[in-house]
Amino acid sequence: MQLESLSTPCLLVDKMRFMNNISRLKSRLSELGVAARPHLKTLKSVEAVKFLLPSFDSPCTVSTLKEAKEFVAAGYRNITYAVGITADKLPTVLELQHQGAHINILIDNAVQAEAILAFCETNHCTLHVLIEIDCDGMRAGIKPSDEQLGKIALKLASRGCFAGVLTHSGGAYLCQSENEIKQFAVQERNAITQAASRIRAMGLPCNTVSVGSTPTAHYGEDWEGVTEVRAGVYVFFDLVMANLGVCELKDIALSVVTRVIGHNAEKNWLIIDAGWMALSKDPGDGNNGYGLVEKANEDIIASAMVNSVNQEHGIIHLPSTELLSSYPIGSILRILPNHACATAAMHESYHVVDQRGEMTNWSRFNGW
Amino acid sequence: MQLESLSTPCLLVDKMRFMNNISRLKSRLSELGVAARPHLKTLKSVEAVKFLLPSFDSPCTVSTLKEAKEFVAAGYRNITYAVGITADKLPTVLELQHQGAHINILIDNAVQAEAILAFCETNHCTLHVLIEIDCDGMRAGIKPSDEQLGKIALKLASRGCFAGVLTHSGGAYLCQSENEIKQFAVQERNAITQAASRIRAMGLPCNTVSVGSTPTAHYGEDWEGVTEVRAGVYVFFDLVMANLGVCELKDIALSVVTRVIGHNAEKNWLIIDAGWMALSKDPGDGNNGYGLVEKANEDIIASAMVNSVNQEHGIIHLPSTELLSSYPIGSILRILPNHACATAAMHESYHVVDQRGEMTNWSRFNGW
Repeated sequence: MQLESLSTPCLLVDKMRFMNNISRLKSRLSELGVAARPHLKTLKSVEAVKFLLPSFDSPCTVSTLKEAKEFVAAGYRNITYAVGITADKLPTVLELQHQGAHINILIDNAVQAEAILAFCETNHCTLHVLIEIDCDGMRAGIKPSDEQLGKIALKLASRGCFAGVLTHSGGAYLCQSENEIKQFAVQERNAITQAASRIRAMGLPCNTVSVGSTPTAHYGEDWEGVTEVRAGVYVFFDLVMANLGVCELKDIALSVVTRVIGHNAEKNWLIIDAGWMALSKDPGDGNNGYGLVEKANEDIIASAMVNSVNQEHGIIHLPSTELLSSYPIGSILRILPNHACATAAMHESYHVVDQRGEMTNWSRFNGW
Repeated sequence: MQLESLSTPCLLVDKMRFMNNISRLKSRLSELGVAARPHLKTLKSVEAVKFLLPSFDSPCTVSTLKEAKEFVAAGYRNITYAVGITADKLPTVLELQHQGAHINILIDNAVQAEAILAFCETNHCTLHVLIEIDCDGMRAGIKPSDEQLGKIALKLASRGCFAGVLTHSGGAYLCQSENEIKQFAVQERNAITQAASRIRAMGLPCNTVSVGSTPTAHYGEDWEGVTEVRAGVYVFFDLVMANLGVCELKDIALSVVTRVIGHNAEKNWLIIDAGWMALSKDPGDGNNGYGLVEKANEDIIASAMVNSVNQEHGIIHLPSTELLSSYPIGSILRILPNHACATAAMHESYHVVDQRGEMTNWSRFNGW
């Protein structure tokens, strides 16, 4: 790897790990007989997404309408926008439909349903609406037992706008063991299939029954009744996922390349040119500072982490067994991220290195 | 203000507050007879910077070479790049000098000095080098009493590359009172003037004697011996600065405009479309979650903050005295940022509203 040629700080993707991570989840879901709808919020790169989505019709998930616009412009046309929508965002969705894309949108209350029906009435159109189900009490969604569920589904169905149900098991990030994640996947499946059953019992079709989070996608053992599984961060993985046991450190495909710009001999500190602007301020699970430290050759420096960050400075408190002189001014280090989505979001492109050491570049975008 | 017309989430700048914040520091430093060298790392906007820098020759500070390149391209030519430099970044600095800019660069060790001298030898050029002084033990720099200081200054001066000394009192962010900040400013001044005196005692000129942090810039009472004061976040201010007493909440000129996208009636939660992607994951001083919540009309909702964030979701635990129905789905809220530099960094433009309610747009950039 010619890391010396890189301007620092910057993002590096290990392409072999990236491809392996993609294959792993694909195989697992395929064995379990359930479709994947990968989440593109981590990658946000048109060049990268072709390794994840085999065709322009492959299902995918996005977290912003900017992602939807970028991926539709690139040719993809089967997209779920998995954040609760408000009326002001509907014209963009319709515009994307006019461009030939099938966009699923998400709601969890009657006000949103009314707004969508009014919009469809005015614009003589049909939108494809999923109802968000709360499977863990962590964020949005309505409980599968909530009587509102049937009312909203009926209301949407009256104009042909009801497409199914969706849940996100964000609580799985707080699990402490593989077994807990497996249990969480059961809880997630039970919630969503209960919701789907209640809707079907009313005589409505419920075509989409969508679940997802990177932990449950990797440890769920039975997706009976579920039509698709969403996951995003697994393409890169990160320290949160490694500490959760979903991957190993050697699976993490994303790192920040940085240079040593200073030594504090009194304190045995390395100062690096990667601060929160390059690493993000995400503390992960609180165990690894702002990231673990690898040498350019990928050996992890035991007990070293980025202990503090300013905008463009990171400080590594080297353990006393490590000499500052082993890390001369100008030398390259690599920082493994706490949270790959957050770290990637601080950058405008990925440097991608393959097995032969050849380097290419993928652009990425942010914004809404 | 026509906030309803904005696509959310987005950044909003209150231009009157922004202009007042700029005037306040300008007046203070002018009364104390010391020059300002504003830091542009917070703004990163060519359209915005004209309100801060009266002329293309006005001194300014940057945290990345990307900022230097952007502002030189816009015509500014008196720039200090205030992060320790390594050899790989020197060609960019020379290129900017060839474009007519005066760029001060920063080092704190002999290895960097040697690299710069070797580069100047090879390229038949002179670079303008400041030596970073450690005034608080928080980050980079050499102690004013360190014998290395004189050696490095002499080495640089041998090729006409020595420009002066610079320190950053980042520790002032940890002060607990106005009085502590005043004391910190004294400590900062003492450190930098001691360094300058030691260098002058060796017979070298020390033209630049630079200090800075937003707290000490606003509370320092005597800058005798100091030639310039740097500060950045003061143009917007934020909750960290308000809690520190450097500004009041009503001075904060930056907010994130967001919409309510969900209600959790059981828990009295509002779900908003601003997650860490719009607010940053910066926890500030830990007292305000991920930001305080204002209504569209700028009334702060007492005891409300963004309690948790995911990528595109924020959750506000409303106090029991507030009814969810007062914040209908689709309604606009504004979030005051913990740390304006970090929140601004998540966006690509500012919506700027003036006293008459007229709105304009300033673009901003990130990257290196």
